Amino acid sequence: MTDAFHVPNRILMGPGPSDVAPRVLAAMAQPTIGHMDPAFMALMADISAQLRTVFRTKNEMTMAMSGTGSAGMETLFANLVEPGDKVLVCVKGVFGTRMVDVAERCRAEVHRIDRPWGQVFPVEEILAAADRVKPKMVAIVHAETSTGAHQPLEGLGAALRERGALLLVDGVTSLGGAPVEIDAWQIDAAYSGTQKCLSCPPGLAPVTLGPRAVARLEARKSKVQSWYLDLSMIRKYWGSDRLYHHTAPVNMLYGLHEALRIVLEEGLDARWARHLAMHKRLRAGLEAMGLKYVSQEGHHLPMLNAIGVPAGIEDAAGRKRLLEEYGIEIGAGLGDFKGKAWRIGIMGQGADARHVELILAALRSMLAKG
Amino acid sequence: MTDAFHVPNRILMGPGPSDVAPRVLAAMAQPTIGHMDPAFMALMADISAQLRTVFRTKNEMTMAMSGTGSAGMETLFANLVEPGDKVLVCVKGVFGTRMVDVAERCRAEVHRIDRPWGQVFPVEEILAAADRVKPKMVAIVHAETSTGAHQPLEGLGAALRERGALLLVDGVTSLGGAPVEIDAWQIDAAYSGTQKCLSCPPGLAPVTLGPRAVARLEARKSKVQSWYLDLSMIRKYWGSDRLYHHTAPVNMLYGLHEALRIVLEEGLDARWARHLAMHKRLRAGLEAMGLKYVSQEGHHLPMLNAIGVPAGIEDAAGRKRLLEEYGIEIGAGLGDFKGKAWRIGIMGQGADARHVELILAALRSMLAKG
Repeated sequence: MTDAFHVPNRILMGPGPSDVAPRVLAAMAQPTIGHMDPAFMALMADISAQLRTVFRTKNEMTMAMSGTGSAGMETLFANLVEPGDKVLVCVKGVFGTRMVDVAERCRAEVHRIDRPWGQVFPVEEILAAADRVKPKMVAIVHAETSTGAHQPLEGLGAALRERGALLLVDGVTSLGGAPVEIDAWQIDAAYSGTQKCLSCPPGLAPVTLGPRAVARLEARKSKVQSWYLDLSMIRKYWGSDRLYHHTAPVNMLYGLHEALRIVLEEGLDARWARHLAMHKRLRAGLEAMGLKYVSQEGHHLPMLNAIGVPAGIEDAAGRKRLLEEYGIEIGAGLGDFKGKAWRIGIMGQGADARHVELILAALRSMLAKG
Repeated sequence: MTDAFHVPNRILMGPGPSDVAPRVLAAMAQPTIGHMDPAFMALMADISAQLRTVFRTKNEMTMAMSGTGSAGMETLFANLVEPGDKVLVCVKGVFGTRMVDVAERCRAEVHRIDRPWGQVFPVEEILAAADRVKPKMVAIVHAETSTGAHQPLEGLGAALRERGALLLVDGVTSLGGAPVEIDAWQIDAAYSGTQKCLSCPPGLAPVTLGPRAVARLEARKSKVQSWYLDLSMIRKYWGSDRLYHHTAPVNMLYGLHEALRIVLEEGLDARWARHLAMHKRLRAGLEAMGLKYVSQEGHHLPMLNAIGVPAGIEDAAGRKRLLEEYGIEIGAGLGDFKGKAWRIGIMGQGADARHVELILAALRSMLAKG
């Protein structure tokens, strides 16, 4: 017989999941009720409204998909792309690369532009490519979790709107930790995950679609290739029709509701300021030890700090020591940064002085011992 | 500010989710850890082993997909079908109909055979269609949740193997409540859900693929159209490679692990016998009130009892009374049975004398009052 699973004592400072508040865990442990229960329908309406506030949007089609952040990515490509559509993807890390793969599987005609890992795109560079390609949609990652780079988005949406292209944004790591201004920045569609700056366990993907994206969806000539992620049906479950589509992950939604309550109790401005303040504190400490960011100067993400692996420390062995001696999880480098970078997350509940001082102390001790 | 969500006191006797044991809810409320944590990897290996026992299989590729049961359906079609492949789908309710839709979206050449809702297919009828169509795969629902019909599967797998066709089975409602013999019945691929007879909250889809299905996967000429559900990558995360694909829904997997421990503590034979005994008790009580099953005589599912809406009771009003006066959720009819049938689930934790006697008492009282 398999033994019961007892969770080891961890402090989550990787690229997500982040530490989850006890209130959220307690909410998830409430008894399961039916996915068509009137009380559950009211909960879903609450979550839509909470997500609108967090996404800074009036978009009616705002909800949580029943999968993790990558399911959010796939949802938007599968619903907004028809075979042969030109899509411009801006690639500067793992998640931009993943967008290319997902868009190709949706049979888009994919055009990609690339920046070296760790860097961001100047808006003009994206617009020049858009003028050349004339895409129906431009897709870009706001917070590239694999590199720690913070992509500026201001001005991009308005300029693409003039060009008739939709703007699709990956806000997985930024939502709740830095401004994501769906309406003000004229972002047509965005997705996120719950396990980063919202500090909810992984398993849901918040998405929001504006009027131009909804019009694209409604004008489709072909069925969405994914039944599970087909928004034309899911909107009838989350919307006032309340038509059964699939069985929602009920307890996960209890957790998201409570996590969003915590976000909104704090307030978005205060939450963004907290992430930034903790980032500055962490950065000062890291740089005092001689550790260097691998992301572009002036474009570091507050919640995801990607630094070079300290000289004299072996990547995997160093992370193992942090996990075993301190219970601290940090993230390994991916792709171009594999073996070369460490990713230190201070997300949601984890963006506080305790987390920051602990990782700094652990790193100082490790560097001193060598 | 949105109020905290407090779950109403419900007794779940619909088509799922079923009542979840406090042990499972407590397991889910443990702190979130990383999806690449060695302790979490060990948990995943445990879950694979537990699922092999529950599916009665030695299939190495046995795991839980990060979505609900419908994501399990889509996973198997998306991975096992290439555009133009002939697929034979046996339709006798909502979930067979859904299979047709999903297979078409995967660009299969879909051939369907139909039986009236509530009935099952004689194996010979399926084989005759297979001889005519010569499909690469035959898909069928074992426990049709929309009709309460229990499809016999013995002999089908062996006969299809002779014909070179894979057998794909939907075991969403049967797994853990009635025999699902993957190896003995020569089922090549099957999926299930967690929220039925496993009595775990919804959000995960157990799947298992045998050697012939894995060979089909490995011989694909085209990429799987879903990135999120692509088993060629997910097997490297669940398998010994432990390569990152997406962020697993960590706390949901804590819950599934504990739910499967409960299933295996009881033992499959005892669990199946309990579901059958409670079905007989429920049926005797229902028939004593003059209520009639809408599924085919001799093929009633033990865990999902579909009966005609009692004479003199209006469908929606009757279900509302059960919910408001007793806190009991039962299921409405779907499709051909919309407005005509009620679905009473006795699944997992819900297959006990308390649930059976309570619903019988509530129905008796309602019929007496009219």
